[in-house]
Amino acid sequence: MAGALTPAGTPVRVVMLGSGNVATHLARALHSAGADVVQVYNHHISGAERLAAEVGAAATAAVDEIADDADLYIISVTDDAIAPLAEALGKRGGVWVHTSGTTPASVLAPVTGSYGVLYPLQTFSRDVEVDMSSVPIFTEAATPEALELVDSVARSISRTVSHADSEKRKLLHISAVFACNFTNHLWSFSVDILREAGEKLDVLRPLIEVTLAKALAAGPDAGQTGPARRGDLGTISRHLEALPEGEARELYRRLSESILKKFHHI
Amino acid sequence: MAGALTPAGTPVRVVMLGSGNVATHLARALHSAGADVVQVYNHHISGAERLAAEVGAAATAAVDEIADDADLYIISVTDDAIAPLAEALGKRGGVWVHTSGTTPASVLAPVTGSYGVLYPLQTFSRDVEVDMSSVPIFTEAATPEALELVDSVARSISRTVSHADSEKRKLLHISAVFACNFTNHLWSFSVDILREAGEKLDVLRPLIEVTLAKALAAGPDAGQTGPARRGDLGTISRHLEALPEGEARELYRRLSESILKKFHHI
Repeated sequence: MAGALTPAGTPVRVVMLGSGNVATHLARALHSAGADVVQVYNHHISGAERLAAEVGAAATAAVDEIADDADLYIISVTDDAIAPLAEALGKRGGVWVHTSGTTPASVLAPVTGSYGVLYPLQTFSRDVEVDMSSVPIFTEAATPEALELVDSVARSISRTVSHADSEKRKLLHISAVFACNFTNHLWSFSVDILREAGEKLDVLRPLIEVTLAKALAAGPDAGQTGPARRGDLGTISRHLEALPEGEARELYRRLSESILKKFHHI
Repeated sequence: MAGALTPAGTPVRVVMLGSGNVATHLARALHSAGADVVQVYNHHISGAERLAAEVGAAATAAVDEIADDADLYIISVTDDAIAPLAEALGKRGGVWVHTSGTTPASVLAPVTGSYGVLYPLQTFSRDVEVDMSSVPIFTEAATPEALELVDSVARSISRTVSHADSEKRKLLHISAVFACNFTNHLWSFSVDILREAGEKLDVLRPLIEVTLAKALAAGPDAGQTGPARRGDLGTISRHLEALPEGEARELYRRLSESILKKFHHI
């Protein structure tokens, strides 16, 4: 992938606002792709300095020190902090995007007419490397010129860039919460239970990989198996008895009920 | 992997009781590994005939026609049907195992003293090929001689064979229900939501793969992300508003609560 260039043929100058998981991975990928990450802003200077050092940028914790000559400003802070930050920024030049799944693009209107979104559909942890080129990125922007810049920057780091309006992006985000956050939470119960059995999650790796392959190939409904799918109430009740009272047992009950209902056993 | 042989050096003669998903994949793998699958029993003859034809065996639906000269009998029927079938069989020769995660080995005691379990930790759908050699198989048996035969048969089809008593096997099974059945159920909600967004589950593949890689490498707790992990109540309530009333919304609420509690946000 070629680095993103401005219409004048120079590397895109980027300011990153935020230094959390998403900001870190985006700044790293942009830096690697030849963009010029000029500055990192964070309301705690230590976070700004850490990320800035990684990508050869300046660091600031002061809103009024944010560079005014960048091409692209990426706001990557917690969802609830985006709108207050936009209000605090006031009118600015350049193209402004946020990276949130669920926040409308228009919360950036107080800053500029050239606003948009660059939403990477991935889970980021600071210290786990991610191959950004395979991460689907969804973009939108308020003007064609802004969209062109955002798309060009997105394509410089990912092979899969498509457009999604705020409504579609929210649906993508919700589906990702089910598929990633909730799924991962269920795996944490597996880990607890496996610990009692003297085993690690790795013993379930072939099982999980086949489950995913089946879900991708034929859909999760066609591939569903297990006691609740079979309507095997005896096994379900033996499992409930074996689980200590608490969240694992409650979720086992609730999710089994959900599957039993879906497959018309209750 | 070498085919399983009897102490006399001849291929192990196997009778498969059942013709469902697990029975089908085990019979195929044993047949490929050089075992002699002599007969398939099923209470519906059509199921027995289908599987028998695949592995060059005879088919029967009559308990009193079950061969009496096999080395290993594998009962692979729904959990609740194992004990009644064992009662109906009465005293028999040979080594008898079932393949259930949650049923104690001892339900086979009415049939023989040489009983045990051969439990493959995998999800099987009849028409989806599975590389059995990578499936962890857990065995147990009531006598050393029976265990030797069961292990030798298990090792002829899988690289990963270990022992697990009935208690440990039940824990493995419960952990698998969380990691596979419940997870797959959550993916079905992702599919529904993605359909509305004009996308397929494939768009989440990089996300799910990274989630799994992180969970395996550092544990699911370390890798947890998302609105509930961050305590981002604004996003959670926007997601709940976006979901139509029903099971997806109820589970979103319940699972978010569970994560919020786990990470001390509520």
